[in-house]
Amino acid sequence: MAEAQQRVYAFGTDAQGNNVTEGNAQMNYILGGKGANLAEMAQIGLPVPPGFTISCQTCVEYSSADNTFPEGAVEEIQKYRADLEERMGKRIGDDEDPLLVSVRSGAPFSMPGMMDTVLNLGLNENSVQGLIKQTGNERFAWDSYRRFIHMFSNVVMGVEDDYFEDAIAAKREQYGAKNDSDLTADQMKEVVDEYKKIFSEQVKAEDYPQLVVDGEVAFPQDPDTQLMLAIEAVFNSWNNDRAIIYRKQNKIADDLGTAVNVQTMVFGNKGDTSATGVAFTRDAATGEKVFYGDYLINAQGEDVVAGIRNTSPIEDLKHTPGLEQVGKDLEDVFVLLEKHYRDMMDIEFTIEQGKLYILQTRVGKRTAVAALRIAISMVEEGLISKEEAVWRVKPDQLDQLLHPQIDQKAEKNVIASGLNASPGAAVGECVFSADDAVAATEEGRKVVLVRWETTPDDLGGMIAAEGILTSHGGKTSHAAVIARGMGAPCVCGVEALRIDADKKEAAVAGTDIVLHEGDIISIDGTTGELIYGPVKLVEPELTGDLDTLLTWADEIRTLGVRANADNPEDAKLSREFGAEGIGLCRNEHMFLGDRKQIVADMILAENGSDEYMAALDKLYEVQQGDYYEMLKAMDGLPVIIRLLDPPLHEFLPAPRDLAIEVAVGEAKGEDVTETAELLEAADAQAEINPMLGLRGCRLGIVMPGLNAMQVRAIAAACAKLVKEGRDPHPEVMIPLVAMESEIEFVRGESEESIAEVAESEGVDLSFIQIGTMIELPRACVCADEIGKHADFFSFGTNDLTQTTFGFSRDDVEGKFFGDYADMGIMKVNPFATVDDGVIKLVDQAVRGGRSANPDLGLGICGEHGGDPDSIAKFHKVGLDYVSCSPYRVPVARLAAAHAALADKEFKVDK
Amino acid sequence: MAEAQQRVYAFGTDAQGNNVTEGNAQMNYILGGKGANLAEMAQIGLPVPPGFTISCQTCVEYSSADNTFPEGAVEEIQKYRADLEERMGKRIGDDEDPLLVSVRSGAPFSMPGMMDTVLNLGLNENSVQGLIKQTGNERFAWDSYRRFIHMFSNVVMGVEDDYFEDAIAAKREQYGAKNDSDLTADQMKEVVDEYKKIFSEQVKAEDYPQLVVDGEVAFPQDPDTQLMLAIEAVFNSWNNDRAIIYRKQNKIADDLGTAVNVQTMVFGNKGDTSATGVAFTRDAATGEKVFYGDYLINAQGEDVVAGIRNTSPIEDLKHTPGLEQVGKDLEDVFVLLEKHYRDMMDIEFTIEQGKLYILQTRVGKRTAVAALRIAISMVEEGLISKEEAVWRVKPDQLDQLLHPQIDQKAEKNVIASGLNASPGAAVGECVFSADDAVAATEEGRKVVLVRWETTPDDLGGMIAAEGILTSHGGKTSHAAVIARGMGAPCVCGVEALRIDADKKEAAVAGTDIVLHEGDIISIDGTTGELIYGPVKLVEPELTGDLDTLLTWADEIRTLGVRANADNPEDAKLSREFGAEGIGLCRNEHMFLGDRKQIVADMILAENGSDEYMAALDKLYEVQQGDYYEMLKAMDGLPVIIRLLDPPLHEFLPAPRDLAIEVAVGEAKGEDVTETAELLEAADAQAEINPMLGLRGCRLGIVMPGLNAMQVRAIAAACAKLVKEGRDPHPEVMIPLVAMESEIEFVRGESEESIAEVAESEGVDLSFIQIGTMIELPRACVCADEIGKHADFFSFGTNDLTQTTFGFSRDDVEGKFFGDYADMGIMKVNPFATVDDGVIKLVDQAVRGGRSANPDLGLGICGEHGGDPDSIAKFHKVGLDYVSCSPYRVPVARLAAAHAALADKEFKVDK
Repeated sequence: MAEAQQRVYAFGTDAQGNNVTEGNAQMNYILGGKGANLAEMAQIGLPVPPGFTISCQTCVEYSSADNTFPEGAVEEIQKYRADLEERMGKRIGDDEDPLLVSVRSGAPFSMPGMMDTVLNLGLNENSVQGLIKQTGNERFAWDSYRRFIHMFSNVVMGVEDDYFEDAIAAKREQYGAKNDSDLTADQMKEVVDEYKKIFSEQVKAEDYPQLVVDGEVAFPQDPDTQLMLAIEAVFNSWNNDRAIIYRKQNKIADDLGTAVNVQTMVFGNKGDTSATGVAFTRDAATGEKVFYGDYLINAQGEDVVAGIRNTSPIEDLKHTPGLEQVGKDLEDVFVLLEKHYRDMMDIEFTIEQGKLYILQTRVGKRTAVAALRIAISMVEEGLISKEEAVWRVKPDQLDQLLHPQIDQKAEKNVIASGLNASPGAAVGECVFSADDAVAATEEGRKVVLVRWETTPDDLGGMIAAEGILTSHGGKTSHAAVIARGMGAPCVCGVEALRIDADKKEAAVAGTDIVLHEGDIISIDGTTGELIYGPVKLVEPELTGDLDTLLTWADEIRTLGVRANADNPEDAKLSREFGAEGIGLCRNEHMFLGDRKQIVADMILAENGSDEYMAALDKLYEVQQGDYYEMLKAMDGLPVIIRLLDPPLHEFLPAPRDLAIEVAVGEAKGEDVTETAELLEAADAQAEINPMLGLRGCRLGIVMPGLNAMQVRAIAAACAKLVKEGRDPHPEVMIPLVAMESEIEFVRGESEESIAEVAESEGVDLSFIQIGTMIELPRACVCADEIGKHADFFSFGTNDLTQTTFGFSRDDVEGKFFGDYADMGIMKVNPFATVDDGVIKLVDQAVRGGRSANPDLGLGICGEHGGDPDSIAKFHKVGLDYVSCSPYRVPVARLAAAHAALADKEFKVDK
Repeated sequence: MAEAQQRVYAFGTDAQGNNVTEGNAQMNYILGGKGANLAEMAQIGLPVPPGFTISCQTCVEYSSADNTFPEGAVEEIQKYRADLEERMGKRIGDDEDPLLVSVRSGAPFSMPGMMDTVLNLGLNENSVQGLIKQTGNERFAWDSYRRFIHMFSNVVMGVEDDYFEDAIAAKREQYGAKNDSDLTADQMKEVVDEYKKIFSEQVKAEDYPQLVVDGEVAFPQDPDTQLMLAIEAVFNSWNNDRAIIYRKQNKIADDLGTAVNVQTMVFGNKGDTSATGVAFTRDAATGEKVFYGDYLINAQGEDVVAGIRNTSPIEDLKHTPGLEQVGKDLEDVFVLLEKHYRDMMDIEFTIEQGKLYILQTRVGKRTAVAALRIAISMVEEGLISKEEAVWRVKPDQLDQLLHPQIDQKAEKNVIASGLNASPGAAVGECVFSADDAVAATEEGRKVVLVRWETTPDDLGGMIAAEGILTSHGGKTSHAAVIARGMGAPCVCGVEALRIDADKKEAAVAGTDIVLHEGDIISIDGTTGELIYGPVKLVEPELTGDLDTLLTWADEIRTLGVRANADNPEDAKLSREFGAEGIGLCRNEHMFLGDRKQIVADMILAENGSDEYMAALDKLYEVQQGDYYEMLKAMDGLPVIIRLLDPPLHEFLPAPRDLAIEVAVGEAKGEDVTETAELLEAADAQAEINPMLGLRGCRLGIVMPGLNAMQVRAIAAACAKLVKEGRDPHPEVMIPLVAMESEIEFVRGESEESIAEVAESEGVDLSFIQIGTMIELPRACVCADEIGKHADFFSFGTNDLTQTTFGFSRDDVEGKFFGDYADMGIMKVNPFATVDDGVIKLVDQAVRGGRSANPDLGLGICGEHGGDPDSIAKFHKVGLDYVSCSPYRVPVARLAAAHAALADKEFKVDK
C-alpha cells in the first residue's frame, strides 16, 4: 500500500510558543497562496494566529469523487482541529473560553473574492455564553453570533442574503434603531432567533438530513458539523460559476483546486486598543517607497472593505494613543516582509487589545507604472538583480503604458460593449465609411470609424480615424488586427449596434439611442466599452523607468525584435520603440487607394497584353518612391518587403452587389450591359475559399511581370539610396510558398530584376536578400528543399494557424470559439497565442531550413510576434527574432527577455 | 583529368562477320530504347544492319551547352563512322559502292513519331552514280536521292513539305504521270534538280554559312556535313514542341535526352525478293498466341505505314515464292525474341534481295485485354512467374475494362471537348437540372446531366443520369469526384458550352449547335469528347483473365482494399469487385433529398429548442433504416460511417440568390419580408471560406445532440442486425479532428449513445469501433495525442492536400494548375497523385498514432486511394488499407500488388 499523503498542515505556534509550522512559501501548489504565506510568516517569527491548512489536492480528490472526502481526510482534519485546540488551550464550542475560527479558501493563484469565507465559526448557544464571559461584552457576542449565522447560512447553505437583511431591518424598525450598531445586546439576541428561524425555513431537510432535530431543520450546534460543512462549502466554491469564469479569464488551470485555511479568530473590534487594516509596503499606484494603507479602530476586516466608516492612513497608527508601539511593530513587520520576500507586499492585520496579528500577506498587485518603479528601485536598493527586476514586470502590463487611456476619474455613459480588440481609447465623431473618415480628417475633425466589419478597402479610413468600432468580427478580425498593427484603439463585435451605413446611422439595441454621423462617441479598446459622448483621455508616456527596464531587458534577451510596418511613419515610430528592423512590410497599400484603378485595369486586361504591361509600368513608377521612403526611414536596418499577397478580387467590386444592381436594373428595364460585364469579370475572379485561392506567390507566378515589377522598384529605390550614401537593407519576401519550385522560380526572376537594375544603375545590389514567408504546412515539412533557395524564413503564423487547424479566423472565431472555450475544448485562442501543434511545424521548418542553409535567417511576423506567451515558444524553438506591431515592440522586448530568463528560478514567482 | 566517358557505341558485325556490339538491352538510359534493343539483338546473333549509337548523355550535354557538341564528341563520331565504313567495306558518298545510312532518334522511353528520322543519308551527285552501278536500277537511285533531299530538307533544315509536293506534282502533270512511280529515271533526275533548287531558295545563307558555294546555298555534297547536320537535327528534336508535350502527358523526364542511331541502310524495295514489314509476336488487341503483322513486297518502311498499297498478313510470307525460307527464318526470330525477352515483342524487319534484317524490336504495346491474356498465358507457358505477370499489367490499364466504352468502329460527331474526368461513355437526352434528371429517369428516359458545375444538391440528379457534363471545373471538381465515385462517365470543363439553365439550353461555341432539353448527346469520359447524337456503346466485362490476375494480385499484396460507398447498391457492387470493406460511407445524403427540409428546420431553430430536438428525432427515425441497409449489405465486413461533415449553409438557399430576390422584390414594391428573413438566416450561416468553416466534428460539437443522434441510429441498426443473427462491423468516424479534446469529447458522447442503446436493446455493442478522419496538418503532427482516443485513423487526403498546400481545389485547379504545369512548377496534380509533402505528414501521423495505440487501424479514404502511384506511397508508409470508389477497387487491388513488388527487379521494365 502506498504511503498516505499528508493532507493537513499546521501553522503558527503551540501552547509553549514554539513554532510548529509544517509549510513554507514554496508550497503554494499544496497550501494555496494564502496558506503558504501564512506558513512562511510563521516560520520567520511573525505573529500569525495559529491554524491549519487543508491541501489543494484534497479539494481535487473531493471534487473528482463527486464531492466525497478521500479516505482518512476527515480523520486527519479532526486530528488537526484537536491539535489546534490544544495549542490554543481552548475548545471550539466551549461555554467558558471558546475557540472561534475562520474558514477561508486559498488557491495557488490569487482569485480575489471569487470563493467563500466563513468567520466566527464555532459559535453556538453554549459558546456564545463563553464569548460573553471572555469579553464581558454581551452585545459583541450576540452580534458575532448573528453575523456567523448569516454568513454560514449564506455561504455554506446558499440561503439568500435578503432574508437576513430584511429580518434585521425589521428589527431596526421595531426598535427605532438607525444602524445595526444601535441595537442592544438583547435586541441582537432577538435577531439571532430570527436568523435561526430563517435557517430552519430555508434549508431543506432532504438536502441536509443530518441537521434535522425533532423533525425540523435546526442551525447546527455541533462545531464539527459547522466546520466540515464550511470546508465542503469552500471546496465547492472552487467550481462555482464566478470562479470558473475568473479562471478562464486569467488562464488559471481548472484542476489546481483550492486549499482551506482554518485559523484562530482574532478580533479588531474589542475596543479602542483593537483595530484592523490593510497595507502595502510601497505605493501600489506609483511605486513610491512609502508605507501605504488604511486602518479602523475597533472594527472587523469586513468593515474596512465596506467603507462605512472613514479609515485612517497607516502612518497615523503609531501616533494613536495606546497603539504607538504596535504602530512601530507594524512598520518593522513591513520592513521584515519586504526584505524577506524581496518584493512589495500586501498585508492584512488585526490588532486585538494592543496585540498585533498578521492575517495574510501576498505580493502586492500594482499598476504598470508602480511595477516599473518598484523593480528599478529594488535593484538600486540591492534587493534584487537587474534580471529579477526585468522578470518582475509582466510584458502584458506594458500595454497599459503605451496607449491613450480613458481618465479613470471621468464620468462616462456606457451604452454598449463588445470585444476589447485593440487597447487604448479614442474620442471622435461617428463616420460610417472610410471615405467619410478621410474627408472628415482632412477637415481637421477627429472621427471614430463605425463599420459592420472592415475590409482592406477601408484601410485609408482606418488610418485616418482615431479608433475603429465594428458590430461584427472577433479579436482577430480584420479591424482588430489592423487596429492593433496601427496601435489604434478598436472595439469590435458590438452586437447591439444596428448599422445602416447607407443612412449613416446606427441604432443601439436595448436603448433609444441612434448614432448619426457627426455624433461624438468614445470607445475604450482596453475594456470594450462604447461610450455616448466625449470622455477625457490621458496620453501615454514612455517614462524613464520604462526605458531603463527595457534597456536591461535588451541586455538579457537573445531574441531580436522587429516591427511590422507598412509605411515610413510606422517605421519611424517602431525605431523609437526600439525595433531592430522591419519584419514585415506589406505592400498591399501600394496597390490600393488611387492605384486601385491601375490594378483593376491590369486584372481586366489580358495577361501580358499592352494594356496589362502599361498598368505594370505605372505601378513600377509609383512604387519606387514608396520603397525609397520606407528604406530611408529604416536606413542601416533590415526591412522585409513582402511581394503582393492578397487575391485579385479584393481589387474589384463585390459580385453580390453587382448582381443585385444588374437584377434590379433589369427589373426596371434599364440598360445594365456595363455592370453585367463587370459582374462577369468579378465573378471570374471570385473564389469559393479566397483564403485558399490564387494569392501569395501564386499570383506573381501566374501574372507575368508582376513580381519583376516589384523587385525592380525595390532595387531601383536601393540604387538611389546607395548613390545618396545611405545604407538600405531590403529583404524581398516571397509569400505563401508551398513548393521548392515556386521559390526557385520567383528567386530566379527576382535575381534577374536586381541584376538588371544593378547593371543599368552601375551599383552593387548584391546585398538584397531574398527569402520566403513560411505560412503553409507543406512549406514546414519541406523546408529542407525550400531552404536551399532562401536567405531567410519568416513565419506567417496567422495563415499557418489557419491551414494547420483547417479553419479560417474570419469564419470560426465568432462561430464556435465561444462554444469551444465554454466546453473546455479550446483553452487558448490559437490566433492569440501560438498553438503547440503549429509550433511543431515551426520547429520542423527551423530544423529543415537550417539543414539546407546554416546561415538561414529565421523570424516570425504573424500576429503572435507581439504575444508574450508565443514569444517564449519562439525563443525556445530557436528563432532569431520576432516582429510585431510598433506599439507592441516594447512588450516584445520585455517578453523576449522573459523568454531568456524562463529557465532561471527566482525566489518569488512573477 | 577524368577519364572521358564513352559517347558512341557500335552494334552489329565487322567485315569478318564477328559481333562487335558494345551495348545491350539494359543500357536504355545510355543508348535509348531502340539502340539498346539493336545492340541486344546483335548480341544474340540476330541479323541487324550494322551501325553505331550516339548516347543520350551526348544529347543532354549538347542541349545544355546551347547546342554545341561536347569536346571530343565530333571526333568520336567520325571515328565510329570510319569504323562502320571499314566494317561494311564501303564508304559513304562513294561513287562505286556507296554506304547509305539512316539516322534515327531513340530515347530511353518510346516516344513514337515525336522525333526525327533521316533515311538514305550519304547520297550526293557522286554516290547516286555508285548506287546506279550497284543496283543497275537508275530510277531507284534517283528516286532514293530525291527522297533523301526532301527528307533532309524538311527534317534537318525545316523546309516546308509543300514546296516538294508541289514540285513533284508539277512534274507529274508535265509528263502526264498519274503516280510518282510512273515517272521515269530521267524525269526523276529532273525532280532532283527541282528539289535542289528549292533547297537553295528556302535555306538561308545566314543560318548555314557552311553550305554557301559560289555565293549561293547548295545542297550539301559532303557526307560528313550531311551526317553531322542530321545528328544535330535529332538532338534538337528532343526539345521540339510535340516532344515536350508528349513527355508532359506521359510523365517522362525532360532531362533524359535522346540517343541517335546511325545504321546501314537496307532496302526492301530492290525487287520481288525484297520486302518490308512490321509484326507482333502475339495479337496486340486480343493477346492471342499468333504471329501478327503485315508486309509489303518491294517496298520501303514508309510505304507500309502510308497505307497506299494493301499489305499482306505475315503468315503469307512463308508461302511467297522465293521468300519461303526467309518467312520461316522470321518466325524463328519471333520465337527467339519472345523467349529472350520473355514478352510480346513488336518488330520491324526488311528483306533485301532475300536476306532478312531486323531493324527494330521493342516490347509491344497492347490493349488491356491483351495485356491480361499475354501475362496469364506466359505464366502457363512457364516463361514468367505469377508475380511478374501481375507486374506486367498496369493498374491504369484496367480502367479500360471497367466502364462502358464507345464502340471504336462507330461514327461520331465530336462538337466540343473538355477534361476526361471519369472514364466510360454515356448516351442520353440533355437535361439541365438535377430535378429534370430525376423526373426523366422516373419516366424511363436516359439522360446526361448538363450543368455549369455540380453541387451536393445535384446528387440525386447525378445518380439518376447516365453521365455528367459540365462547362466548368477541373478533374477533381465536385462533378468529377462524385462521378468517379459512382463510376459514372463525366466530361467536365467543356469551355465551349454556353449553358443557360433557365432556358434549358446550351450553345456550343464555334458551332451553330444549340443543345435543347431532350436532344440526344454522347460523352466519352475516357477521351473528354462531347458528341452530338447517339453513339453505340460496348458494355464492360469482367473476363476470367481479369479475375485470375486479380486473384494472383491478392496473393501478393499486403495492403487491404476497401471501397468508398454511400449506399447499399454501391456497397454490393464494391463487394463484387473484391472490396474488403467500406472505407468511407459519407452520410450526407441521409441529410439531403426529402430530409433537407428537416435539416433546414433544425438550423433555423434555436440550438437545443423543442423544434430543434424534434427535427433531430425525425432524422434519427429515418437514418436508422439507412444504416441498417448499409450494414446489412456489408454483413461481416467493416463499414466506416463518417458523422455529418459539410457546413450547414449547404442546406440553405444561396444568399446571393435571396439577396437578388429581395432587392428586385423591393424595387417592384413587393412584400419581401419572408425572403428577407430567410436571407438573414442564410447570411448568418454563410462563410467566407466554407472549406475552413464550421464543419466536420465542429458541427457535431456545437450543435447539441447531432452526433449522439447519428451514433444512436447506427447503434440501433446494429442491435436490429445482431438480433437477426447478422454480423455488422460499423466504425464510427469523426471527421476533421484537429485537437485531442475534440475526439475525446465526441468519443465520450458516442460511447454514451452506444451504451444507451446496448442497455435498452439488451445487446452487446462493444464491437462498434470509434476513430477519426485525419485530414488536417495539426491532426498529423499531434497524432500521438489524438491516437490515444482512436481505434482507427483514416486519412482524408483530399482535405489534407488542400490544407497542407493551402489551396482549395474548387478555386485553384482551373486557375493556376495549368500555368503551373506549363511552367514546370507543378509536375503532378497533387489531387490526382498524393504529394510527397502530404506523405510526410501522413508518415508523422502513422508513427504518432501507432505510438499512442499500437493496435490502431490505418487506412486512407481520399480520392488518392484509387491512384496507383499514390497506392505505392501508402504501401511504403505502412498503411493497412486503401479505400477507393467501387469501380477503382480492381485497379487498387492490382496497384497494391505492384506496390508490394516494387522492390523486386524483373528482367524487363513494366
